[in-house]
Amino acid sequence: MSDRIYNFNAGPAALPLSVLEEIQASFLNFKGSGMSITEVSHRSKWFDDVINDAVARTKRLLKLDDSYEVLFLQGGASMQFCMIPMNFLNNNETADYVNTGTWSTKAIKEAEILGKPIKVVASSEDKDFSYIPKNIPFNSDAKFVHLTSNNTIKGTQWAEFPDTQSIPQVIDMSSDIMSRKLDMSSIGMIYAGAQKNIGPSGVCMVIIRKDMLNMVPETLPSMLKYTTFAAKNSMYNTPPCFGIYTIQLVMKWIEETIGGLDKMEQLNIEKAGVLYKAIDDSDFYRATAAEDSRSLMNVTFRLPSEDLEKQFVAEALENSFGGLKGHRSVGGCRASIYNPTTREAINALVDFMKTFEQKNG
Amino acid sequence: MSDRIYNFNAGPAALPLSVLEEIQASFLNFKGSGMSITEVSHRSKWFDDVINDAVARTKRLLKLDDSYEVLFLQGGASMQFCMIPMNFLNNNETADYVNTGTWSTKAIKEAEILGKPIKVVASSEDKDFSYIPKNIPFNSDAKFVHLTSNNTIKGTQWAEFPDTQSIPQVIDMSSDIMSRKLDMSSIGMIYAGAQKNIGPSGVCMVIIRKDMLNMVPETLPSMLKYTTFAAKNSMYNTPPCFGIYTIQLVMKWIEETIGGLDKMEQLNIEKAGVLYKAIDDSDFYRATAAEDSRSLMNVTFRLPSEDLEKQFVAEALENSFGGLKGHRSVGGCRASIYNPTTREAINALVDFMKTFEQKNG
Repeated sequence: MSDRIYNFNAGPAALPLSVLEEIQASFLNFKGSGMSITEVSHRSKWFDDVINDAVARTKRLLKLDDSYEVLFLQGGASMQFCMIPMNFLNNNETADYVNTGTWSTKAIKEAEILGKPIKVVASSEDKDFSYIPKNIPFNSDAKFVHLTSNNTIKGTQWAEFPDTQSIPQVIDMSSDIMSRKLDMSSIGMIYAGAQKNIGPSGVCMVIIRKDMLNMVPETLPSMLKYTTFAAKNSMYNTPPCFGIYTIQLVMKWIEETIGGLDKMEQLNIEKAGVLYKAIDDSDFYRATAAEDSRSLMNVTFRLPSEDLEKQFVAEALENSFGGLKGHRSVGGCRASIYNPTTREAINALVDFMKTFEQKNG
Repeated sequence: MSDRIYNFNAGPAALPLSVLEEIQASFLNFKGSGMSITEVSHRSKWFDDVINDAVARTKRLLKLDDSYEVLFLQGGASMQFCMIPMNFLNNNETADYVNTGTWSTKAIKEAEILGKPIKVVASSEDKDFSYIPKNIPFNSDAKFVHLTSNNTIKGTQWAEFPDTQSIPQVIDMSSDIMSRKLDMSSIGMIYAGAQKNIGPSGVCMVIIRKDMLNMVPETLPSMLKYTTFAAKNSMYNTPPCFGIYTIQLVMKWIEETIGGLDKMEQLNIEKAGVLYKAIDDSDFYRATAAEDSRSLMNVTFRLPSEDLEKQFVAEALENSFGGLKGHRSVGGCRASIYNPTTREAINALVDFMKTFEQKNG
């Protein structure tokens, strides 16, 4: 499709072209049902096959055994910010939160709104969230440790997660889920709004270790407790069918086209490497995240002046590179290069950056 | 599309073919953006145009003035069941609920889980929810009256809403929103999972009178209070973009192809009329809802025996009529005939029913 742009949006973001083409081709008649995927009943065999395959592929990709449930919720990661303390903190129980930026801050805020006595045990706010904290003093009475694995806005990412001993980690992976291999041994729950690496907006993947479900109070409203979703294969009520279907196709793409998470990770390291190298080799572009905390998903950088940044984003757009403006809260430039972003797109961007530097450097 | 079936699903349900075709045609390149609607940023002009047009058309269709907000949430009507008492009942404030079936029962249950002292002021449970109660004794101290406008399972519908004096009505219209004209004068809030009359699953329309927002406690989690969505044009966090886009197209279809809610209502009355007449004219089929409470959306009926019902559903399916099995909780047959169901589909179904009766009656 020559009329498609190079999409570096932070989310909603690019999806694999082959996935979009499959959705398009079957949009009026899904799998011989005579209906669109948007029209089939969630209680039908057609949709059962979709959701079960999405779950099975997710489990295979992450090598999850039967001690984990893969669930699909609504409301994005933002809804998880309140559901997590509601589900896992009873009475005066506490949890440790690490603050690595905007999304961590919001997660902390929602726990505090609920009156939960959580502790912020580390923060990189002192340096404008440009790094990932080290040597964190976790509290042994914490029911969980909350982490945000990747900061889309400042372009930082946990290279590896901290040692929290036996305390389960609850990790917001909205912006890097399925982008790399994952050691699940300390993870109690992962959650991710789909709209960056694995699907469209409107569906949130939750992977939860079954023993975490024992912490959920019976007294919560049905739609706010994980047990409701776990008991009904995410279909206590009508799920976001189109989003789950798209996730299924993206998981299939990772498994069958890319070749699994090892390959996905390798590709993502390569892609980010090419872009960071272009930035580091230049005196014109400057990466903003601390080197050991750089994100493989969101590459944030500055130009010598704000005027040049504006010009860069505008000329990029004219040349079919979309989404390169930094988040409105921080300015600068950002290339979001999630799973679906191709090597070709990265190479084209690097070429454009070099040309721009030659003309304006 | 000759390979599409006549879709009588209860929800997710049929969508207008022209809407599906427009989604399909622009799926790889939305409005010249070079991106799919699933890939454009919710902070872009492309999506702004979508959500603003969806809101504007909804307001025009329902003749809403500026005292109403049109919002898009996630979690379906089921999430509203808990949000409503959370948002509108402080401390020991009370509300009146009318129980007309499964969905009302669930709404009542969630209010009770939250410990709210609500009152069930009328119920049709005594006759298996086959009718809509009359002469209901509402309590003057009720903060709102909760109604379910249409019971998809039993096939009943409020022909007109009761007089609740100055008490605002909060109405679950998941299965009949935009199917008929609406007098908003007593309505404080409408909510509707989109997947029956106006869109795909995964987005819930909430129309709220602005003074209702004054009742919302500041202390609720951000994603659980209506004020959060009202303050940010439903974009406090990433909204369900694909669902909102589909709703926009369905609203455009109602306005421009059908010709507005007067015409939509007239068409729905005609469609249901043809089907109920075929049932009433026969001694073989039997309608299950009380005559004055019959739904224009879900036509529930029985055949002389359960065996014949099974045979009817199976033969219908062979003849490209899908979704005619009654809800698993009640059995029998049901034809869900929401806005997108065509007169042609109704006529074809009636012909099939007559042929089936001739062969088996």
